[in-house]
Amino acid sequence: MKNNTTREHILEVATRLFHLQGYHATGLNQILKESGTPKGSLYHYFPNGKEQLVIEVINSSSQRLQADIQSQLMKTDDPIVAIQHYLQLMMQRFEKLDNPNEFTMPPFSLIALESAFSNENIRQACKDNYIKVEALYYEKFVQSEMTPEKARDMATSICAVIEGAFMLAVTKKTNEPIASVRKMIPSFF
Amino acid sequence: MKNNTTREHILEVATRLFHLQGYHATGLNQILKESGTPKGSLYHYFPNGKEQLVIEVINSSSQRLQADIQSQLMKTDDPIVAIQHYLQLMMQRFEKLDNPNEFTMPPFSLIALESAFSNENIRQACKDNYIKVEALYYEKFVQSEMTPEKARDMATSICAVIEGAFMLAVTKKTNEPIASVRKMIPSFF
Repeated sequence: MKNNTTREHILEVATRLFHLQGYHATGLNQILKESGTPKGSLYHYFPNGKEQLVIEVINSSSQRLQADIQSQLMKTDDPIVAIQHYLQLMMQRFEKLDNPNEFTMPPFSLIALESAFSNENIRQACKDNYIKVEALYYEKFVQSEMTPEKARDMATSICAVIEGAFMLAVTKKTNEPIASVRKMIPSFF
Repeated sequence: MKNNTTREHILEVATRLFHLQGYHATGLNQILKESGTPKGSLYHYFPNGKEQLVIEVINSSSQRLQADIQSQLMKTDDPIVAIQHYLQLMMQRFEKLDNPNEFTMPPFSLIALESAFSNENIRQACKDNYIKVEALYYEKFVQSEMTPEKARDMATSICAVIEGAFMLAVTKKTNEPIASVRKMIPSFF
């Protein structure tokens, strides 16, 4: 494998393990084993080890998450329809819940909650993710002529209800909570 | 200490540590140390160790959570006002975010997400908690003449938005996300 590929492969395996198991339950040894990477390579690309790795995972997952949301928000002027499209897409991904090897959807909440009281660098990366996600909704709501104050509170609420729905889906092992929120979205506005 | 008191003291310390740090990051040794309990006592009261302990923590925290919600729902016929009262109460508790030793509010999401793919017994206990919480909202909504189908989807959405707001509050170390959701609740209905 080329250098970039090795680095990306480590990140890909780490992404799946951190999102599924969390930061504490995922050891560097498991990442080495599942990626088939020698320890030296991992420390070559991630000299600060597990913390650096999880922060890169958060940042790259956050970019994917923002791209997913933005691609739906761009499709239509109506924020309600756009959010419902996004939740439709998420419902399809959450159909893979029974197969954790294929399920790489990030409920960021796990890493965020794990680190909130114990690791400021990780907490900050998770906080930055949510600030960026909320900003996407905020922009969309302001464009649809919501007042800035209401747009801010609504962006936080939409971010909260979606993260909460992902958490309920994972806990109940069904995408029904996402379907319920999707149905209720029009009544939120 | 009397027997009951020792058992309750262990549970109290375990509750704080599991909710703040999660299941994986909390070792029995830390629980023994912080509670000042000998190892024999812990295994006397919780013969199945850490898993039994976390499930009792989930169940007792769930009862407190349900009591908190129910006490607010009983105060008024209007579910919107009742949920806003509940969030007002939570905002006060989340003011203690800066002092983790005093902050014992359970975002259940942490233990739920940690165990979702790795421990069926813990996942089931977390799932049961959410089913009971949603049932409280469902009953209230049906009493206020919402259709059962809408009441079910709305109960899930309210549960999701509140858990999501708690998660954002912990990640951002401010109770503002709870305040935002509280302000938006009337527009949800």
